[in-house]
Amino acid sequence: MDGFVIDPRLAADTIAVGDLDLCSVRLMDDSRFPWLVLVPRRTGLSEITDLADGDSRSLMDELRLAVRVMSELSQPDKVNVGALGNIVSQLHLHVVGRFLSDPAWPGPVWGSGASSPYPHHAATLLVERAAQLFSRA
Amino acid sequence: MDGFVIDPRLAADTIAVGDLDLCSVRLMDDSRFPWLVLVPRRTGLSEITDLADGDSRSLMDELRLAVRVMSELSQPDKVNVGALGNIVSQLHLHVVGRFLSDPAWPGPVWGSGASSPYPHHAATLLVERAAQLFSRA
Repeated sequence: MDGFVIDPRLAADTIAVGDLDLCSVRLMDDSRFPWLVLVPRRTGLSEITDLADGDSRSLMDELRLAVRVMSELSQPDKVNVGALGNIVSQLHLHVVGRFLSDPAWPGPVWGSGASSPYPHHAATLLVERAAQLFSRA
Repeated sequence: MDGFVIDPRLAADTIAVGDLDLCSVRLMDDSRFPWLVLVPRRTGLSEITDLADGDSRSLMDELRLAVRVMSELSQPDKVNVGALGNIVSQLHLHVVGRFLSDPAWPGPVWGSGASSPYPHHAATLLVERAAQLFSRA
């Protein structure tokens, strides 16, 4: 993968779930929201226009897969998808399960209050369940 | 297009730019941020997983086109892309040019303060320029 390294800040805020063909999948360590992050394993990407055409198709396929996994994982009222990169410029996509009862609804999760890390045992279970759903899909 | 009607709230907040094969393109009437909205002209869509496979590829192509147009239109420091739908559930994608100097940076634009409509002449110019960039691309 040509020396691809995940951004250290992104790595610190998330927990590895597994790798798809293009993207690494990570769980945001914030128990307030079920939140996956997809990171294409390509160097030097910031905007989705930086992707090769073929990779952009893979990204859409993997994004749709992640939305389906999120729906099954958390049964949310809505899924939010975003690629911002204002803080971490390395291209990454957020897939967030949202609930009418969550602390940021109907606003965005980004920039909303302080994150609340999972207890270790809960993170482990969630990661295992998410990985299982990805492998079955 | 099988009776597709754009959500009235989305229509009220935006100005028509033109139609691509799949999506209608609109300019958010908020002069704080250069902001395009793509709305796939299909009925009954809420999540990107509701799109047919072929339409999802078109959406990725048109989204990348819109990011390129936004980059040329406003020369932003970063482009933000999002599909939230917490308020308007009809599937729509935001493509927002962001600046280190803008009033919401580095936070998201969604839910950030009150929108500030364009003066009519400025909106007209922006829409014309955006339409020209789409047609050239």
